[in-house]
Amino acid sequence: MNIQKIKEHVIVRNELFIDKAEELKPALHTKTIYPISLVEVMQDEKAIHGWSMAFTAPYSSLKEQAFGKKEAFILDFGDHQVGYLAFDIRPAGSPPDAPLKLKLTIGEMPVEMAEPFDSYDGWLASSWLQEETLFVDVLPGRVELPRRYSFRYVKVEVLETSPKYKVVFENIECSAVTSAHCEKVEPLGHQDPLLQKMDDISIKTLADCMQDVFEDGPKRDRRLWLGDLRLQALANYKTFQTNDLVKRCLYLFAGVPNDKGQVTANVFVKPELIADDTLLFDYSLFFVSTLYDYYEATKDMATLIDLWPTALRQVELGLERLDERHVVIDSEEWWSFIDWQEGLNKQAPSQAVLIYVLKQAIHLADVLHTPEKPMLASRLRDAVEAAKQFLWDEQQQFFISGADRQVSWASHVWMVLADILPKEENQALLNRLLTADEAVGMATPYMYHHYVEALLLSGEREKAIEQMKVYWGGMLEDGADTFWELYDPNDKNFSPYGSHLINSYCHAWSCTPTYLIRKYSL
Amino acid sequence: MNIQKIKEHVIVRNELFIDKAEELKPALHTKTIYPISLVEVMQDEKAIHGWSMAFTAPYSSLKEQAFGKKEAFILDFGDHQVGYLAFDIRPAGSPPDAPLKLKLTIGEMPVEMAEPFDSYDGWLASSWLQEETLFVDVLPGRVELPRRYSFRYVKVEVLETSPKYKVVFENIECSAVTSAHCEKVEPLGHQDPLLQKMDDISIKTLADCMQDVFEDGPKRDRRLWLGDLRLQALANYKTFQTNDLVKRCLYLFAGVPNDKGQVTANVFVKPELIADDTLLFDYSLFFVSTLYDYYEATKDMATLIDLWPTALRQVELGLERLDERHVVIDSEEWWSFIDWQEGLNKQAPSQAVLIYVLKQAIHLADVLHTPEKPMLASRLRDAVEAAKQFLWDEQQQFFISGADRQVSWASHVWMVLADILPKEENQALLNRLLTADEAVGMATPYMYHHYVEALLLSGEREKAIEQMKVYWGGMLEDGADTFWELYDPNDKNFSPYGSHLINSYCHAWSCTPTYLIRKYSL
Repeated sequence: MNIQKIKEHVIVRNELFIDKAEELKPALHTKTIYPISLVEVMQDEKAIHGWSMAFTAPYSSLKEQAFGKKEAFILDFGDHQVGYLAFDIRPAGSPPDAPLKLKLTIGEMPVEMAEPFDSYDGWLASSWLQEETLFVDVLPGRVELPRRYSFRYVKVEVLETSPKYKVVFENIECSAVTSAHCEKVEPLGHQDPLLQKMDDISIKTLADCMQDVFEDGPKRDRRLWLGDLRLQALANYKTFQTNDLVKRCLYLFAGVPNDKGQVTANVFVKPELIADDTLLFDYSLFFVSTLYDYYEATKDMATLIDLWPTALRQVELGLERLDERHVVIDSEEWWSFIDWQEGLNKQAPSQAVLIYVLKQAIHLADVLHTPEKPMLASRLRDAVEAAKQFLWDEQQQFFISGADRQVSWASHVWMVLADILPKEENQALLNRLLTADEAVGMATPYMYHHYVEALLLSGEREKAIEQMKVYWGGMLEDGADTFWELYDPNDKNFSPYGSHLINSYCHAWSCTPTYLIRKYSL
Repeated sequence: MNIQKIKEHVIVRNELFIDKAEELKPALHTKTIYPISLVEVMQDEKAIHGWSMAFTAPYSSLKEQAFGKKEAFILDFGDHQVGYLAFDIRPAGSPPDAPLKLKLTIGEMPVEMAEPFDSYDGWLASSWLQEETLFVDVLPGRVELPRRYSFRYVKVEVLETSPKYKVVFENIECSAVTSAHCEKVEPLGHQDPLLQKMDDISIKTLADCMQDVFEDGPKRDRRLWLGDLRLQALANYKTFQTNDLVKRCLYLFAGVPNDKGQVTANVFVKPELIADDTLLFDYSLFFVSTLYDYYEATKDMATLIDLWPTALRQVELGLERLDERHVVIDSEEWWSFIDWQEGLNKQAPSQAVLIYVLKQAIHLADVLHTPEKPMLASRLRDAVEAAKQFLWDEQQQFFISGADRQVSWASHVWMVLADILPKEENQALLNRLLTADEAVGMATPYMYHHYVEALLLSGEREKAIEQMKVYWGGMLEDGADTFWELYDPNDKNFSPYGSHLINSYCHAWSCTPTYLIRKYSL
């Protein structure tokens, strides 16, 4: 269970930054979406999680049916939606002489319609599973659910009426919301239908995660995480160009650092801006990356000047974790994210992230003509040297991580992105990894994104496309309407949380194919 | 299962009457009530239903406790309340990183806190059981529940938080509502503390049932029933004198008769005025009684003139059910209410109700100088004669009812109230019943009310008080905060619905001790 609970978590609020973030609060664009059909969920061993959906009737037929106690139906909205549900209920039969009791089960995937939430036994809070038990005292009436859901399917079960009446459901709709400027997306028009589809689904995924902030997943956790923000921002520059939302998120993080100046791994924005008490080495450093990418996309010098001190402080804190050899100090607890991969040692990939970020910081220092540039350059040299000297196993010809000298994909992907070896060596390294069966693998689309970008940067364009087709293409083949938080082509029930029911099936860090395709003209 | 579902139920709306009822819609008076203590429910074989409450801590201590997953507490509001619940929740620990899932169980009686609602297996809709499952996405926050509850106890169970936080509950309050003019009640100041208590609890019961209309029970069914209205109105004249509410209810019934002119046994007022498709011989006739009592209490001639045609029509329809012998035609289905007593034949008591009402109609016709008086007088003579001739068993010296010549308490109580025999004979009749072990008994406070009034009218004042002390006094001894829908001193788990969980423990037809005490100066 990867959680941090920090006892003495002192936050130093920067009200000026918080006010700026508040001013940038986006308007949400609303679109009314109607269900398209009634479906049933069927056991299907070929389908992901063992369940597939079958059409039973057009949605228009629903209003002809009256539902009594223990009767149910499943609506299909045709695509992934993030929004608010409302519907009319009218009684059929005698006047309703007792409240109506309904259960709604709201899901992104067939499995959520098929497997009872009661059966959930994972370690994340079951309260993320989207369901409602409702009592309706007055009929006919309109039910407007106040909570936002992330879904394609809605199961409606009549738990109780009375012997005197049944109910008919009408005018069901979803007010779908996003803060993305959808009109700004330029059509891709790709010749390869699979890459075109990947681009489409990436954009849909990103739009559904763009709300008041860039959320990581609209079903779960609905929060602004720095690691996810960095990738969302990159995809956004190539598509919606809703750049003020990136700016807002940067100010939010900069508004609530801890008493050492470290930005937290994530923040909450309701009921007010609150920094979570989770601090991650790599995520804090990605404040620098996100500011770097934002400046590169917008050339917004005012924001860069405002936020540079926060960025610099993340680098300083990152550097404080280096030992006398200039190697990042490893530890047992959950100190750096990198990936959800079970057993992954974080030392070497974190060293690479630090190097990656130092280079961006130096570039920004250069732009700003700040005096820290020579210091940063010197520390960079030391860190690169240390990586080569202490984290490289000459015999194995691999980077090693931690006391157990672990060889992992994450280490190498990040060392390639950190760009410390010549391009051909990077290419050779990634190829060599393919034969290293014992190397610790990758678990998340977040890590796969970095792998694909590493391939592209080391000249392996075809391999990169092939990987994308296997990985994101695999999700499409398995029926993804939006890209998923987690996907293991070899273990499609994989969840780091103990149950695939709680996985998020529209997740920000999975939206990058559009960035990769458009940036590298794949 | 006593329900009617009428296929061709044609309602003829009288918009003038409906408008008058609408104009009389009462303001609700609100009072903020706070919990007084935390309690626990304990098995107690001496207590009603086998459960009693034990104090565990003052309410003020609640805000010192943080509740995590699977932790719970029970609040005691000290007395029966009808109103709306609200409370603050604040997180304790890290910022809440997952929704809070709560279950509330809201009950009038300890048994509702003790026995899981899942175990309910009665024939009335389980949706009357007061419970909510809530998700709270944003903390800290205030939860304001939109539904009205009828309760003394509230169980709060934390079904889910996350490993990172617990929750604290604060500022819990109930906005209690009633339309009763509480300030108009004159203190009784009775020397007998039991009669004083009965008066107090009657008044509390009535107040809690006085809302937008006179409801039968604020927990269940929350509806305006004519039989209950008649008794509530009688208690109201002696206490709150909120007479416009009686007037409103009369207009509501008169506003939606069926196509024969019959007023229905009950009406719904939300989302708009709807007549239920239940027609009961006695309840329709009680429209006349309620109008009679209203006129006697208020001398409101305009309303009497308005509603006389509706009242007269109920009498005409009642008379249409007489056979050529002038005896009410019996039938198998649920055609007349009288009482919930299992196996009770309704013929003789219904004949008596008709006679009782005919006398009131004749009085009103007299006041109004309408031409129907002679006809009504003639039909009364026939009905009384028929009762004596065909429903009297000379050998047994009892009234008999139905083809099986059933002897019941209900028949005799109503024959006494119909006042067709000399006072001494009535007295003798009621005394004789005490020795008739095979006579079908009484099930409800509604029927006991009529029994006590029959005793009083036949000169058995001491027996009447004794009966009240046994029956309503029994409820008090068993812990009633308000008088109950159902009470059988010999079978305290009695429910006509298959489960005492669904019984209503604040029920209008049980509120008459104040009327009996104050009217008859007991």
